[in-house]
Formats: sequence, C-alpha cells, structure tokens
Amino acid sequence: MQFEVTILGSNSAIPAFNRYPSAQILNYHGNHFLIDCGEGTQFRMNTFGVKRGRLDNIFISHLHGDHYFGLIGLLTSFNLNWREHLLNIYGPPELEDIINVHFRHSQTKLRYAIHFHPLHADEPRIVYDDGMLSVETIILEHRLPTTGFLFREKKNLRKIIPEKITEHNIPYEAINGIKRGGDFTTAAGTIIPNSELTLSPPKPSSYAYCSDTIYTESYLEQIKGVDLLYHEATFIEEHAFRAAETFHCTTKEAARIAQKAGAAKLLIGHFSARYEDLDFLLNESREVFSETYIAEEGKTFSVDHHAGVVSKHPVQH
Amino acid sequence: MQFEVTILGSNSAIPAFNRYPSAQILNYHGNHFLIDCGEGTQFRMNTFGVKRGRLDNIFISHLHGDHYFGLIGLLTSFNLNWREHLLNIYGPPELEDIINVHFRHSQTKLRYAIHFHPLHADEPRIVYDDGMLSVETIILEHRLPTTGFLFREKKNLRKIIPEKITEHNIPYEAINGIKRGGDFTTAAGTIIPNSELTLSPPKPSSYAYCSDTIYTESYLEQIKGVDLLYHEATFIEEHAFRAAETFHCTTKEAARIAQKAGAAKLLIGHFSARYEDLDFLLNESREVFSETYIAEEGKTFSVDHHAGVVSKHPVQH
Repeated sequence: MQFEVTILGSNSAIPAFNRYPSAQILNYHGNHFLIDCGEGTQFRMNTFGVKRGRLDNIFISHLHGDHYFGLIGLLTSFNLNWREHLLNIYGPPELEDIINVHFRHSQTKLRYAIHFHPLHADEPRIVYDDGMLSVETIILEHRLPTTGFLFREKKNLRKIIPEKITEHNIPYEAINGIKRGGDFTTAAGTIIPNSELTLSPPKPSSYAYCSDTIYTESYLEQIKGVDLLYHEATFIEEHAFRAAETFHCTTKEAARIAQKAGAAKLLIGHFSARYEDLDFLLNESREVFSETYIAEEGKTFSVDHHAGVVSKHPVQH
Repeated sequence: MQFEVTILGSNSAIPAFNRYPSAQILNYHGNHFLIDCGEGTQFRMNTFGVKRGRLDNIFISHLHGDHYFGLIGLLTSFNLNWREHLLNIYGPPELEDIINVHFRHSQTKLRYAIHFHPLHADEPRIVYDDGMLSVETIILEHRLPTTGFLFREKKNLRKIIPEKITEHNIPYEAINGIKRGGDFTTAAGTIIPNSELTLSPPKPSSYAYCSDTIYTESYLEQIKGVDLLYHEATFIEEHAFRAAETFHCTTKEAARIAQKAGAAKLLIGHFSARYEDLDFLLNESREVFSETYIAEEGKTFSVDHHAGVVSKHPVQH
C-alpha cells in the first residue's frame, strides 16, 4: 500500500530561503500525480529522485505563477527525453492557451499527446477516476478562479479468506462477486453468507489539497474526515489583515479548517517570503490543531491513516 | 572599472548535474544586464547574491525554453517586490506575445513599465547605446532565429594629467574638449598640444555572447579582437554529428572561432546533459585555443583585458 505525498515546493510567490514555489507529487501505488508546478519543479524532481515515467496526470490549481511557471519547462523536458505516452493536464481553461503559445513560438512539435482537461471553479466535480482512485475539484476562494483537489481512494473490495476457497471449493468465476459482498451457494445448495468468507476491506484513505484560498467553510463538508489535509497557511496570525487582503489564510485558520473537517492530520504550506523560521507557524497552528506538520520540501508524508506522518526523507541527488 | 560577467546557468536544454539552463549577468560599472533567462534564473540570482535594483535590460537570444523559461517568473517577482522603474526587454518579436498571454490570464497588472525591443535576426544592429556601452546583435545560425550579443565599451575619453591643469591654469569649461583630443590655448596665446596634456585612454573592452549556433564564420569579422568570447560548446568532438544535426557547436569548433577571431579569452558553455565531467570538454577546447575556460556557474569572469580571467566566486546565499 503506497499512498503518500512528497513536497517539492511549499513557498508562496516570492522565492525565499531556498524554498521553492508550490509543487507536490502524490504517489498512489507507484502512479505519480503532480499537483501544481511552480518554477523549478523539474529541478526538484531531479533533486528528490522523483521518477517521471509514471507521471501521467498533472493538476494545476490556478494561474498565479507560483503554481504553474514550471509546467512549460517540464513539458519541454518530457519531449527532449523522448516521452511518447499521453499526458493529462487538468487546469484552468486559459492554461491551454498559455501552453500552446509557448510551443507555437518555439516551433515545438511534441512527440507525445497532451489531453487537456479544463477545470471550472463553479462547483466540485469528479475530474479523474481510474477505478481505484478518484479526484474531485474543491472550489476555493481566491483572487483568480482556483480549485483544490481531493484524492479519494475508492471503496475497497472485501478480502476473501484464502482457506475458505479450498474449504467450499469456490470456483474462480465466483470470486469477484464474493469480493463485492455476495454470498456463495455450494454445489449441495448450502448458502455460505459473505461474512463467513471475507474480511472487511481497509478503510479508504483520502488527501485534500487546498491552496490558495481565503478562509471559508464552504468546502468543509466535502473534505470531512480526510486523512491528510494540505492547507495553505501563508501568514501568521499577526498578519491576518494581509491574509484577508490577499485572499489567503493564516496558520490558525488552516488549523480551524482541519479541526472542523475532522481531518486526521494537517500539513501547512505556501509560506510567505516574510518568514524564515517556520517553527513559529507550526506552533501557532498546533495551538488549534495539534496534528499539524510543516510541508517541508523533500519530505514524504503518508496519506494512509495506518502509517505515521513522515515516512521518509528521500535521498537528495 | 567593473566589466565582468557572472555565470548563472551554463547547461543546455535538459537540466542535469545541478547545472542550470542559460543565464548570465553582465556587470558594467554596477549596471546589470541579464543575458538569457532559463528556468530558475531568479533562484540563481538569489544564490549568487545578484542585486536586481540595477537590472534594467534583459537580452533574450532565442525562443528555445532553456534560454527564456525563467523570464516570466523574474518579471512577476519584480512586480511582487514593488519594482516601479522601466524594464527593457530585447528579444525575438514573439516573446512579447508570450509575456502578454501570461499576464493576461493571470490578470496581472504590472507596477512597472516594460519596453519591449523586438530583435530581428537578419543583420547585426546596434540595439542599445548609453554613451558608455553599446550592444550589437550577432546573427547566429540555429533552428530558430537567434541573435548573440556584442557588448562593446565605447571609445574612452583621453585622460588629463592633473598637474597640467594647474600648470597652464586650464579652466573647467575647457576640460571636456581636451579629453576629446583638443589642444589648449593659454591666456598668452600659446598653443599647448593635446599630447602634452593627456594620456591615451584605456583600450575599450568587449564581450561577445554566442549561443546557440552551428559552426559558421559569418560573424568572425564582427567579433574580431574581442576580449572575452562566450561561445557555446554543447558537444565533444566525438559527437560532432549531433552538433551538426541540432545546429550546435563542438568544443573545438568554439575554440576555432575564438582563435580565428583573435579573442583574448574563451568561455565555453551550454553543455549537453550527456556530460558530467566538464574537464574533458575544457581540455579538448584547449588543444585548439589554450585560453579556454569553463563557464562554471557562480563564477565571475572579468571582461577587462587588464584583469585576470576569474575574478571571484560570489558568496553562495
């Protein structure tokens, strides 16, 4: 079971203290999903050893530069590295125009196809579903149309107890039905209830990415009970007026969202270039929500609620 | 006298070995000129402590991403950092469209004005002249229209010998004429020839930036006698076929240009991601032109022919 997120960048718009702008890699069983792509994301992927072969889906929250200026460089590098398989990009409709203008003027003909999925920030929609994992947009309130993303593991199948297969001589073609909750009727006509044949599936896990937004409770219901919530916390409490002015959140506002949503854990990020010392932000948030962690660049956090928060620090290349 | 260039990035298109794509800062008496602006250039400026307040002119050679993908991020950061004074950008005409598309879709209103100077890669033109320094385009031969840049100090004024001012009672208003080569007539009517009053001015220095290009001698005459020549050397000799195919140069081709142009010194850069060990490239180039140096990122090279090549390694921030 692999369901974890690696932070590539967690700074806000102005680069500072060697922190990079927003970018994260969500790894679900070896499939990589890139969430936002600030300038230098491809360098961070090199530094932290992120494999690109299994990156087929890129999600862009909105068109402020610190969330997408690295995209065109990454797309170009894919091309120079002979990528040939389809890439899906999910983002604001205008992003397609930006990509096309670059490629037109540089006379670039891509070796691979891009399927662009325009995201509309009017109401939450399921924009991705591969049967195992789905992605829903979260409608945030920022200066530009902005969507967060809720990565939700789909309801898992029940687990068959292997010995029961032999015991009741269950044929292969009956397995799927039982996994989905069906009973089994033996050759002699005896009905074996599903509860005797299977174990409950593990509870599905979920990850919510909320950046950038002013404080609003409009998406609380949607992210209820999320295992890991990434929420922007651009400012400290003292600068709450700047947060409101710029449609961002403070540390405690992020913590309040986590608390009210009943999130298991909170990652804060998108830090203003004002702050070198992030421990202060962490402590402020923990006053409201103790299970807060800093979205430290290079760190990998488990989304799975069975695992600890920090699973590893990837090797720096 | 300050006339030096700091290398911010010297890799070619695919980032590798922590080398960044093309970008350089030319410092002429405290005025900064940015030459190309690959992705991450603003981070490199932070790392190497490049001041941005005196950066008013940006030159972009062509529209391959490794030469301009960092521009939009830098322009955005200028804005977020409250820049209010005019910025000049010199580059291919289509670059203006790219910049405008980004700002339109992100609804950005800049606090400062941009004066865009379209560069046409048909014949060399003087595109900048502030009385002290001029910049001419160099027509390179690449897969897209590409211009290099020749930074040429203008002919310096002659130096007045201070004692002569007292000796002949030279009034203030006569000084400029003498500096420009004029004689001086004393109150008594005696003509003092200029050669008795002044010393020769220092020879003007010049810097040529030539990236990207296939081997061609078409611009040799223009860069004749240049003090410092930056020339791309993307490939080693063994990969000469790839150089020709992709309209790039090899180490020895760059060296031959330096030799035939009578350059004092040669900086090679724009290295392919194939090569981790750059000493091999350096040695190949030195077989033809001994005064070759690697355009190592973070190093500052003096353009002034009186100074040594490597003046300093800036502090890493």
